[in-house]
Amino acid sequence: MVSGVVALLTDFGTDDPFVGVMKGVILSRFPAVRLVDLTHGIRPQDVVHGAFWLERSFRWFPGGTVHLAVVDPGVGTERAALAARAHGQLFLGPDNGLLAEVLARDGSAEVRRIEPSRLALPVPSATFHGRDLFAPIAAELAAARLAFEAVGPEAQPSVGRLLAPPVRGADCVSGSVVCADRFGNLISNVEAHLLDGVRRPLVEIAGITRPLLRTYGEAAPGDYVAVVNAFDTVEVAIRDGNAALALGAGRGTPVVVRSA
Amino acid sequence: MVSGVVALLTDFGTDDPFVGVMKGVILSRFPAVRLVDLTHGIRPQDVVHGAFWLERSFRWFPGGTVHLAVVDPGVGTERAALAARAHGQLFLGPDNGLLAEVLARDGSAEVRRIEPSRLALPVPSATFHGRDLFAPIAAELAAARLAFEAVGPEAQPSVGRLLAPPVRGADCVSGSVVCADRFGNLISNVEAHLLDGVRRPLVEIAGITRPLLRTYGEAAPGDYVAVVNAFDTVEVAIRDGNAALALGAGRGTPVVVRSA
Amino acid sequence: MVSGVVALLTDFGTDDPFVGVMKGVILSRFPAVRLVDLTHGIRPQDVVHGAFWLERSFRWFPGGTVHLAVVDPGVGTERAALAARAHGQLFLGPDNGLLAEVLARDGSAEVRRIEPSRLALPVPSATFHGRDLFAPIAAELAAARLAFEAVGPEAQPSVGRLLAPPVRGADCVSGSVVCADRFGNLISNVEAHLLDGVRRPLVEIAGITRPLLRTYGEAAPGDYVAVVNAFDTVEVAIRDGNAALALGAGRGTPVVVRSA
Repeated sequence: MVSGVVALLTDFGTDDPFVGVMKGVILSRFPAVRLVDLTHGIRPQDVVHGAFWLERSFRWFPGGTVHLAVVDPGVGTERAALAARAHGQLFLGPDNGLLAEVLARDGSAEVRRIEPSRLALPVPSATFHGRDLFAPIAAELAAARLAFEAVGPEAQPSVGRLLAPPVRGADCVSGSVVCADRFGNLISNVEAHLLDGVRRPLVEIAGITRPLLRTYGEAAPGDYVAVVNAFDTVEVAIRDGNAALALGAGRGTPVVVRSA
Repeated sequence: MVSGVVALLTDFGTDDPFVGVMKGVILSRFPAVRLVDLTHGIRPQDVVHGAFWLERSFRWFPGGTVHLAVVDPGVGTERAALAARAHGQLFLGPDNGLLAEVLARDGSAEVRRIEPSRLALPVPSATFHGRDLFAPIAAELAAARLAFEAVGPEAQPSVGRLLAPPVRGADCVSGSVVCADRFGNLISNVEAHLLDGVRRPLVEIAGITRPLLRTYGEAAPGDYVAVVNAFDTVEVAIRDGNAALALGAGRGTPVVVRSA
Repeated sequence: MVSGVVALLTDFGTDDPFVGVMKGVILSRFPAVRLVDLTHGIRPQDVVHGAFWLERSFRWFPGGTVHLAVVDPGVGTERAALAARAHGQLFLGPDNGLLAEVLARDGSAEVRRIEPSRLALPVPSATFHGRDLFAPIAAELAAARLAFEAVGPEAQPSVGRLLAPPVRGADCVSGSVVCADRFGNLISNVEAHLLDGVRRPLVEIAGITRPLLRTYGEAAPGDYVAVVNAFDTVEVAIRDGNAALALGAGRGTPVVVRSA
């Protein structure tokens, strides 16, 4: 049921030793673990950014992977820590919306509130639950020494989806930009399946309109291009350029797809 | 014959989840794989940069390593995907020159064109062959479930070396800067073995001339210093400084080594 | 006694292939190794930064971990290479103060000078001992094929602690900032245990004074907050902001904790 893989998503970056010590803790408990960095480049404290990529990415991991997700501006406050079983995988993270996109897409997802007192853990530091709470639990779950049901009582997340989901209109879909990637490509939350029935789709963003193409290469060099990206959402790029800079667009910029 | 190691070189950076999902795919197919990041810091879409470091680096990996290289501005166009066996290792990458430096140094290298239709792979996305094409094939090759010969027919790369190789003159060698590293050290393509017969070599770059020394420490603090670096090419640095900034030098800056 | 884990701390960054080839070398010698990046984001050539994080971090790794630490501005000079056994773990690094914080906290630490000529190693390059000297030795130690005692003769480090340790006064402790982390939080070398007996501690830094709180969340949004961080030293942050920028503080900025 568990794969022995622990995948990490954080906003810690990799310049500081925070991720390294989390891995040290996991290895100390479960030497055979296979650790994978999903990303540590979530923008600092940007829960929306983390929730989006966690949901778009988990399906590429082996069934039974334990996803440890930490974007946690409220660490040390009373916010709960959650464990979830969804999509055949396990997810750990703070109750701040970080798991919300994953949970929203599995109607039979199970959520539990982590109760450290039930588990034989040292008292966690006030500022680094990634290392002191989530890492040990991830290790124990991945090692199949701790059952999901044993982490704590069933619970409802207190924070839901933080980013408004796209809206399907009569002949169009309205969503928004979630983030730009390294190449300056603008990644929206408009999923491809929402476009069923939109004939000859045109993508509108920041004052420009372009047809939805299949690949970057179909656009003229230097021109904007809209495609469905490899994570199955609408994306706007400039061939050989940086669309985020050129359009001055980013989180929240409206993206509308309508029929030509 | 295969080592079970898959080494990754891309221009994806590590802030986005692109590398993470590639690893998820590889682990899903080959749980015992040992994954190594060679680098994901190749400059975006800079095939020359990737080709250089792939060639300078592969020899430090175990025989039978599968090198998965993705710097792929043409993804989604008709460019072919290649697999190569050279130097006792395997290499996967687009047919855009990325493997050319590796292939140029092994006269008995074998190259095949990957034919996805021969392999039981889902249809790859138009924009992320690293995940949908190269990653699964790397996993299958590293797991020794797929034979090199089975990836597709023999082929000739359609794109050769993109960076002019150094030229050996009567009493000098002329090359150029490939890149600056994190420390601002300027790394040229002038390999040490080309300097055989150049007595008391002097290195000329961007208007300055310095003798070729053995270590940075032989130079005066704050002065320029030319050495043969650990990747066996001529490199120009400033002791305790950033030579790339100080000289305004970078890709393509001529580097000439001549006798004193 | 050894765990099979090799943890890496360097100032190499991850954009260049330097870390990747070190891992290739280690894997070539010890295929079953488990490699962990503690961090490669130590500021270039900043031995103090590396020494601090190595010491604050090692305790989170399994007993018997081999820590390979390379921040080595003197590479290629006559500086010695050291191996140390301390705190139940092994440490490799140049004799330039990088191991000094680790050694200062274990009275029974053993230190040996690495003698490459005793070991069947190729002659190392002049500029990359991380790959040519430390990596092979780390692999052999982690594989338990090389005994710690066999790396070379007992030795005293020639370079001690580079950063003045905090000073305990009658009713206060005086230390300094070591670095800022990704979030701009200012991390000092004032360890929590030094504060025993400081009643109702106030933290002074860069002209401001704040009480020592337990978590960031206890401060008002936008205000400065001083806490004992998860690495057990005093840290000054701004809730939802960047304290390093706001205070213009960094390495060496005095931090004083006194009774209210």
